[in-house]
Amino acid sequence: MTIARTIAFFLLFNAALLGLRADEGMWLFSAPPCEQLKAKYDFDATDAWLDHLMKASVRFNSGGSGSFVSADGLVITNHHVGSDDLQKLSSAEHNYLRDGFHAATPEAEIKCVDLELNVLQSIEDVTVRVNAAVGADLAPEKAAEARRAAIAAIEKESLQKTGLRSDVVTLFQGGAYHLYRYKRYTDIRLVFAPEAQIAFFGGDADNFEYPRYNLDVCLFRVYENGQPLKVDHYLRWSARGAAEGELTFVSGHPGRTDRQLTLEELRFLRDVQYPYTLARLKRLEVLLGNWSARDRENARRARDDYFYIQNSRKAFDGELAALQTPALFEAKQEDQSSLREWNQCHLGVENALGRVERTVEEQKELILRQRLLDGRRHEVLFAPDAFWCDSFALARTLLRTAVERAKPDGERLEEYSDAARESFELELFTEKPIHTDLETLKLADSLGFLMEQLGVQDPLVVQVLAGKSPRERAHELISGTKVRDVAFRKALYVGGAAAVDSAKDPMIELARLVDPAAREVRKRWEAIGEAKQQAHAYLERKRFAQSGTAIAPDATFTLRLSYGVVKGYTEAGKAIPAFTDYAGLYARAAAHDGREPFDLPARWVAKRGALDLSVPFNFASTHDIIGGNSGSPVVNRAGEFVGIIFDGNLQGLILDFAYEEVESRAISVDSRGILEALRNVYGVDALADELQRGHR
Amino acid sequence: MTIARTIAFFLLFNAALLGLRADEGMWLFSAPPCEQLKAKYDFDATDAWLDHLMKASVRFNSGGSGSFVSADGLVITNHHVGSDDLQKLSSAEHNYLRDGFHAATPEAEIKCVDLELNVLQSIEDVTVRVNAAVGADLAPEKAAEARRAAIAAIEKESLQKTGLRSDVVTLFQGGAYHLYRYKRYTDIRLVFAPEAQIAFFGGDADNFEYPRYNLDVCLFRVYENGQPLKVDHYLRWSARGAAEGELTFVSGHPGRTDRQLTLEELRFLRDVQYPYTLARLKRLEVLLGNWSARDRENARRARDDYFYIQNSRKAFDGELAALQTPALFEAKQEDQSSLREWNQCHLGVENALGRVERTVEEQKELILRQRLLDGRRHEVLFAPDAFWCDSFALARTLLRTAVERAKPDGERLEEYSDAARESFELELFTEKPIHTDLETLKLADSLGFLMEQLGVQDPLVVQVLAGKSPRERAHELISGTKVRDVAFRKALYVGGAAAVDSAKDPMIELARLVDPAAREVRKRWEAIGEAKQQAHAYLERKRFAQSGTAIAPDATFTLRLSYGVVKGYTEAGKAIPAFTDYAGLYARAAAHDGREPFDLPARWVAKRGALDLSVPFNFASTHDIIGGNSGSPVVNRAGEFVGIIFDGNLQGLILDFAYEEVESRAISVDSRGILEALRNVYGVDALADELQRGHR
Repeated sequence: MTIARTIAFFLLFNAALLGLRADEGMWLFSAPPCEQLKAKYDFDATDAWLDHLMKASVRFNSGGSGSFVSADGLVITNHHVGSDDLQKLSSAEHNYLRDGFHAATPEAEIKCVDLELNVLQSIEDVTVRVNAAVGADLAPEKAAEARRAAIAAIEKESLQKTGLRSDVVTLFQGGAYHLYRYKRYTDIRLVFAPEAQIAFFGGDADNFEYPRYNLDVCLFRVYENGQPLKVDHYLRWSARGAAEGELTFVSGHPGRTDRQLTLEELRFLRDVQYPYTLARLKRLEVLLGNWSARDRENARRARDDYFYIQNSRKAFDGELAALQTPALFEAKQEDQSSLREWNQCHLGVENALGRVERTVEEQKELILRQRLLDGRRHEVLFAPDAFWCDSFALARTLLRTAVERAKPDGERLEEYSDAARESFELELFTEKPIHTDLETLKLADSLGFLMEQLGVQDPLVVQVLAGKSPRERAHELISGTKVRDVAFRKALYVGGAAAVDSAKDPMIELARLVDPAAREVRKRWEAIGEAKQQAHAYLERKRFAQSGTAIAPDATFTLRLSYGVVKGYTEAGKAIPAFTDYAGLYARAAAHDGREPFDLPARWVAKRGALDLSVPFNFASTHDIIGGNSGSPVVNRAGEFVGIIFDGNLQGLILDFAYEEVESRAISVDSRGILEALRNVYGVDALADELQRGHR
Repeated sequence: MTIARTIAFFLLFNAALLGLRADEGMWLFSAPPCEQLKAKYDFDATDAWLDHLMKASVRFNSGGSGSFVSADGLVITNHHVGSDDLQKLSSAEHNYLRDGFHAATPEAEIKCVDLELNVLQSIEDVTVRVNAAVGADLAPEKAAEARRAAIAAIEKESLQKTGLRSDVVTLFQGGAYHLYRYKRYTDIRLVFAPEAQIAFFGGDADNFEYPRYNLDVCLFRVYENGQPLKVDHYLRWSARGAAEGELTFVSGHPGRTDRQLTLEELRFLRDVQYPYTLARLKRLEVLLGNWSARDRENARRARDDYFYIQNSRKAFDGELAALQTPALFEAKQEDQSSLREWNQCHLGVENALGRVERTVEEQKELILRQRLLDGRRHEVLFAPDAFWCDSFALARTLLRTAVERAKPDGERLEEYSDAARESFELELFTEKPIHTDLETLKLADSLGFLMEQLGVQDPLVVQVLAGKSPRERAHELISGTKVRDVAFRKALYVGGAAAVDSAKDPMIELARLVDPAAREVRKRWEAIGEAKQQAHAYLERKRFAQSGTAIAPDATFTLRLSYGVVKGYTEAGKAIPAFTDYAGLYARAAAHDGREPFDLPARWVAKRGALDLSVPFNFASTHDIIGGNSGSPVVNRAGEFVGIIFDGNLQGLILDFAYEEVESRAISVDSRGILEALRNVYGVDALADELQRGHR
């Protein structure tokens, strides 16, 4: 791993000697890198060009990106983004996730269980209004409350005025607040999915590797009022794809980067947070892997969780390896020293760094209970580590809804705000299958984890386990709860606190038992976040004053624009070409005797003769992307669809912390490869025609 | 998990109402359960019967059991016991571990790389002599030294006098010391192994499960002076197998049990040691699993490590689940309280329990560094967790040999004693293949683990990493060291300290860097062990005084006798029959469409018609066994071989802490099933004839 060193060298080389910047940045559509594009590539990113691309880009709320590719509402994304929906639509009889799907007629398109898509319409800077609501002398906890109330008010007002989903986004770790308004679609139907074997050919073994051979695509159609959505802004399909070295763009929703973190915060990730997370992921990977191997139906039920766990594990492993490279810290140290020196006559930078360091100390104390009881995400179907199963997540949500909805909007936990209500209900009332065996497995393991982490004597652990072993307790809770019944959830949602209390549901009672501790942790965690934001906002202003140039903010799962070129690279002295082709796919399968995970679907074996094996299949490029960008369109200067991002290589995992373009690569499926497969393997010419024509 | 409760109930029921004891105990051959066998089964275990079984039993020093089954030195064990040797004999061209092996002629039998077998000849109680050497007023550290010196002297004297391998074994946690004398064989040749697919059919998924369908056998022949060993004591093969309910015996080498631990020690296992070990195993399982999936040759190279890791993980997971059952602790608490009450007029028991508790406190402090730097075992090819690779293990051994051999025998670390010299050299000069890619993978991960566990700022970590990332440092060390070269090792071994110092080998220099800290940890760890032993020896005497009955000591990887019956059980309301048959094997493969790990070798698919599908294949029994018993013969009253132990079920993992016979079962391959496969699948009639005749 000499990546970080080469970064430093390369940036220096590139910037100083050639006068050109690296292709760094996940740029805001409201602050695009026009100067850089003009200077380096002689490209004019006009407002119209940007507006069109923005409105053709789609966010999958389940955690990914996509784009409109026909005037009739057709959306393309990755198979691994659609897999959550494919899993929910599958049963022991129809395994669409494994076997694929194609709707031969419009009527055959199947409605997804609980998928929500968002299409960004506008961005408004509301920094002044948000900051005005927060008195300068407020303690972090009070400041966080005030800020949350101001944000809820802005979101609700916008929703009422425009009818659009309205989210205030925190940028630059609190340096700016922008209001993002989206059109929101919830009638999404499945049109086409290939088999999991070809979408994820090579499985976990090849994940984050290159060369690759994955048809990682999935097509949905957006409906409105029972009809396919008519779309003005969609991407025209490029039949010629991208050429090596050609300027292209990625428009998508990178989830999270950590480039603006301080040295202390990076140390915290390296020494505390990542080791915790990885140990937990590896534990779950072994649990689900072994359970899946026991029985094919087990494997089907656990498939989506298992993929998520393996994928996360490989990403975090790569990121931790990057964090364990001393050069990354040396570079960050230099940045921070230079800012300190530049600012040495004032103590502002010193103080702000000191404040961040104190928040890290608080995080160290709190993170274990935060992860166990609160969890990283506040979605309805995401439970914290001590109770990782859908049943607990639903139970907690029902319990809290009754309390939170009774409060004024601005005082609620954010996910219970009025502005988020529709998306929230969609998730809470999902009809997705929830399997008691898998739930029990997950909960038993989680309770065992809780017991190990906090200790058997911890009063909360004693209460949670109620004198039973983790397995006994999990079995009792999962078999006793009714929260998996949608009608039950609706009744409790409508009935409020009285209905929830009188239900005496064991899982809801468990959530109630844990709630005071969980809320306390969350409150403290949010106060830490607020203190961090204040310090970072200051540091960001100083950084801008020092360098005089704008940089892109860290990723926040909102729409961003990256630019770069299709390009191979050299790894351990070996040249890796930019493109792979179908001939390479068959060669790799043969090299493994077609054994899992290198087994080809029967259809692919049979249709080999019908395929043009020289057609490009996947390609590597220098775009600055990260998790959440999955499914993002790659477009050329003309705004045409030339490919779809589905992965990055292992070297690219350093992008969480710093941009690198010597070895780090984004990986896409080529638009030509997709058409070739649709026509000559699947014989779905009507769909291929729609892509090429731009309408049905 | 209601096992522990049923234990308590069952023991009560069995003992009190029927006047019969459960089939508990891994009995010493020098103190067999004659009374119990007579009372419950009307069986006379005569001295001649015991002596014959003892001398027909074989210990595999790589960690397992076996038995002589022909007068011409033929030994049968499990495939998973022989796998270590199969791996060492395999290459990319000849994968005996995966594909199996059969020597059609005596000349075709292949000599193992470094396998040592031991056959027990006699047991002598040396407790008085060992204890006499330890002054009552010595501090634990000094006492440990004195005890070690006394043991080394006894072993050396015995070796010189008898020429037999002589090991002093600590029993009852220090309550007794016995001298075990073995014939030692090192010219062991491979005769027959089936394919890994049928030996381990169902893989990790079915491991520790029942019903099972595994031909987990492997046959070797012992040679002496270039000729097959002539054996007086071998087991006659039973062509009729065992019947349900029939009394049978297991003679083998259970590795370790923890039944005599105190409450505090069990808590330590549950709260500290097992969580640590499992997190590490799961980390390694993911590492090796992913690496193996990338490439078939990777999979071959990692196969034996990977099996060891998965197998250990599943066992520890089951044991931890047993430890997390409150009833187990309630039973232990009752035992301890009853001993305390019985002894209340004296403070001896109270004091001894207090001393054990203090050792646990010390262990908590030390265990992390002990695991990272010292390791659990002191074999030549076992490295501690921070440096887990063969290269480090060899480097440390070379470094220490030069120092230790210069000291008087009794003052050395035990593995460098004169008595152990021959076995030690066999291991150190092994010709087994050591692959640099796998070594680098393992060391890089271990260094990352070290960095996470002790922290980046730890002075030792700083020195070990030398300013590099774990990956860079591992690459540098593995590619730079010469310890994988046997000639190099021999030269340094002979050359002593001067040769070792002047070699400037980077891995040896790393071992040198770590050695002061590692030795310090080991010294303290051994002092803790000594203090524990003293307290346990006292408690053991009191327990005996209280109950007046002898119990079997905890397992110590020495020869033990268990008895029990072939018997099915009920699991979650479902009756599990005692026997499986070949029809069941094919049915299970079909239920999984023959996909890994339920894929049958081609030969088994082809020979289906030639097999009698009704022949018993595997069976379950109530024997008290544990890891290390793998490969133990199951014999009937006549001392005939009716089966071979290869596993226990998941419920049986509680046997580490307490005996249970309601659901806990040992699992064996039936003698009839073995013959059927040898004759009708493999067509190796000469080998089958030798088994049935008892000679070639």
